[in-house]
Amino acid sequence: MTHLLIIGGSDAGISAALRARELDSTVDVTIVVADSFPNYSICGIPFYLSGEVTDWRHLAHRTAEEITATGIKLLLNYTATTIDAVNKTVQVVNQQGQEQSLTYDKLVVGTGAVSVQPQITGLNTNGVFLLHSMEDSFAVYQYIKASQPRHAVIVGGGYIGLEMADALTHQGMTVTVVEHSPTVMKTVDSSLGLMIAEKLQQHGIEVVNNTEIKNIEQQGTQLVVSGSDGFHKTTDMVLVAVGVKPLTDLAMSAGLKTGIRGAIQVNKKMETNVPDIYAAGDCIETWHRLLNEYIYLPLGTTAHKQGRIAGENAVGGNREFAGTLGTQVVKIFDLAVARTGLRDIEATDAGNSPVTVEFETWDHKVYYPGAQKIRIRVTGDSQTGKLLGAQIAGHYQGEVAKRIDIFACALFHEMKVEEMSELDLSYTPPLSSPWDPVQMSAQAWVKQVLGKHL
Amino acid sequence: MTHLLIIGGSDAGISAALRARELDSTVDVTIVVADSFPNYSICGIPFYLSGEVTDWRHLAHRTAEEITATGIKLLLNYTATTIDAVNKTVQVVNQQGQEQSLTYDKLVVGTGAVSVQPQITGLNTNGVFLLHSMEDSFAVYQYIKASQPRHAVIVGGGYIGLEMADALTHQGMTVTVVEHSPTVMKTVDSSLGLMIAEKLQQHGIEVVNNTEIKNIEQQGTQLVVSGSDGFHKTTDMVLVAVGVKPLTDLAMSAGLKTGIRGAIQVNKKMETNVPDIYAAGDCIETWHRLLNEYIYLPLGTTAHKQGRIAGENAVGGNREFAGTLGTQVVKIFDLAVARTGLRDIEATDAGNSPVTVEFETWDHKVYYPGAQKIRIRVTGDSQTGKLLGAQIAGHYQGEVAKRIDIFACALFHEMKVEEMSELDLSYTPPLSSPWDPVQMSAQAWVKQVLGKHL
Repeated sequence: MTHLLIIGGSDAGISAALRARELDSTVDVTIVVADSFPNYSICGIPFYLSGEVTDWRHLAHRTAEEITATGIKLLLNYTATTIDAVNKTVQVVNQQGQEQSLTYDKLVVGTGAVSVQPQITGLNTNGVFLLHSMEDSFAVYQYIKASQPRHAVIVGGGYIGLEMADALTHQGMTVTVVEHSPTVMKTVDSSLGLMIAEKLQQHGIEVVNNTEIKNIEQQGTQLVVSGSDGFHKTTDMVLVAVGVKPLTDLAMSAGLKTGIRGAIQVNKKMETNVPDIYAAGDCIETWHRLLNEYIYLPLGTTAHKQGRIAGENAVGGNREFAGTLGTQVVKIFDLAVARTGLRDIEATDAGNSPVTVEFETWDHKVYYPGAQKIRIRVTGDSQTGKLLGAQIAGHYQGEVAKRIDIFACALFHEMKVEEMSELDLSYTPPLSSPWDPVQMSAQAWVKQVLGKHL
Repeated sequence: MTHLLIIGGSDAGISAALRARELDSTVDVTIVVADSFPNYSICGIPFYLSGEVTDWRHLAHRTAEEITATGIKLLLNYTATTIDAVNKTVQVVNQQGQEQSLTYDKLVVGTGAVSVQPQITGLNTNGVFLLHSMEDSFAVYQYIKASQPRHAVIVGGGYIGLEMADALTHQGMTVTVVEHSPTVMKTVDSSLGLMIAEKLQQHGIEVVNNTEIKNIEQQGTQLVVSGSDGFHKTTDMVLVAVGVKPLTDLAMSAGLKTGIRGAIQVNKKMETNVPDIYAAGDCIETWHRLLNEYIYLPLGTTAHKQGRIAGENAVGGNREFAGTLGTQVVKIFDLAVARTGLRDIEATDAGNSPVTVEFETWDHKVYYPGAQKIRIRVTGDSQTGKLLGAQIAGHYQGEVAKRIDIFACALFHEMKVEEMSELDLSYTPPLSSPWDPVQMSAQAWVKQVLGKHL
């Protein structure tokens, strides 16, 4: 009987376990989980803190019972301390300090990531929070209940920062978002970043750009947050959301090679440099399908894919990861903003000749009630005509998310922008136009970039 | 100067004209339009009759003024009577009976389709309507205003019939839908047809299947509709929507070859058998990308594509039609039902070994408010593993339409069902799951059909 040991009970680890058991019901699978929350949707934390998710338990993709019912063993509240790759053992310790040695035939490392702690003095002050784990979110929840903060400063205008700005506004708080870049959501082009800022401001959120927070200190019952350019704000609570970094101390102790931002290096089969050890999820470097190189881009979708591949290969499979396109979507109030593939600057760095054309239309025929504007930015190569990427912003019920997925599927197959017009996409007046907005935006790109003549 | 003459002012004709002018601003383009409604969205008629579209003029994709502003000449209320392909002239006649001869260098035939008149006696009775043109819809509109019908019988449970059932219910009428097949919407599998019937019934609509209407007659101020199996219904109004057939009398008079259901035969360049004559839209046979053969499938999306290609090639282009996948979506009340590619029976006829697996899940993470069930039927080839088609039913705001388009894009590229898991699709809890439902359904297919083992 094969012993598959998995370290980490989030997306990558659970996916690996489930896939291994699905393919081979004889394999013995044990998952070491550092907390009591296996298979939790940490992407859902903002919606728990907004009050939209009424019970934190609902954030579980599956309950511990559902997981163990598949024959998988869960070691909850066990921390892996060392990996002995020669003898194929992993030392674990529980909350009572009891140590134990686990043997493995195949090991999957899915230790995930932790919040980046920026260079801010006073991060340990009461009322200041990082937000990545379930425990983090309980701390925030308790603080809100107990202290009833009326104002919050959010440091970081990325996905989590803005989802939390929405969440805390939903809770009745007023919010200031501080972002060091010129626009929020710097993962999309500035014209969309400005749309997002406008949406935040419509909801009473103060957006401060080009500002670096330096210091947080207690002043009576409040906190004073100060930063560059004379930024100075008295508040009741601070959330710091400036990104994550891979958690790889354990992996390094076992001799696993790391690379970009310290993430574990793997091949497309999710194999590390050490035999019989796989790694997946937020702790690893991820292959980018368009850049043809590894990057660090921790996403839940990717962790699921990589974990599934690691689990399959650990039980004798031969599956390869097809690569990420960096497809992402976020909902902020009623606005959805999505991207896939490369933006101009990324494409240029990769040796392309990108041009981006922005196009705005309606998400469905404007004569049918409820039509909303949808803005699409198409990036293509002016030399080859190839599609390189797309960004979309629009009403979250305007199929923004699955429209970006049409681009993602086109990118997967290396389509030319012009070929988008050949796709047979669905249409009914309440939901689209005879040329879907995706195709209209591609046609606008072709017209502008390749010229109107044949 | 090239003279491009186009017969037909709906999707295909207007698309051809716009594309020709876009590519060559020196070309002289004239469109002969049989009525006064060029470039109207006939797909929008049900929403005009439901009252959701408050002014019929809003149904114009573009106004006549917008079209002529591009330099295109419109001959409104002119009917083309004969084509002389030797001398390259077209005879037209206006409403006053004045004839005129127009010369052309290139001709595009986009005469569209007309409603099929089933074998029912009494179709000409007052209060009985076919529904395909703007004039048809005005007649229905006037009748409803004047006679205030309280009940309607709709003959035909396809797209138009069911959209009209929704529309008339929206107007406060009670409706009986009569369909000769065992389920409504016979273009999708019966399990989805039954879902649709249930939705109709929830809205008070009577659904009668397996019934052929034979006779309609006036009885006092009402109509009596009778059919097979003793069907007998007294009503105030009858709508007949049993499909359309190509309008090709003119084309045949010019020697254009016709084929399936009498539709004009074209090659992938939209060329007919007669030099310098192109045809596009609801009057032609359409190349099916998966069946590798021509079929008759009149759709607005296809008409736009074909018209655009005809217009491009008429001014010197060399574009080929990539083929239809039969992608369609319809909204009935809050339910969207979509399909792309082949169903079992169609795939079998084409020599495949199809298996269809149905999968149900939530359109987004169920912990986030508003999650709705989404049902996906994946058809794949059990020998090759290739994706053959998909059908989806769910809430119309659950991205059903653009999820079918992910399948459509996958079909375009001949993906295997298993490869769907490799697509990097977007995720945020309010809009999807880490594996999009599209991917979950593909995984369910693989698990069931290819077996769980490697």
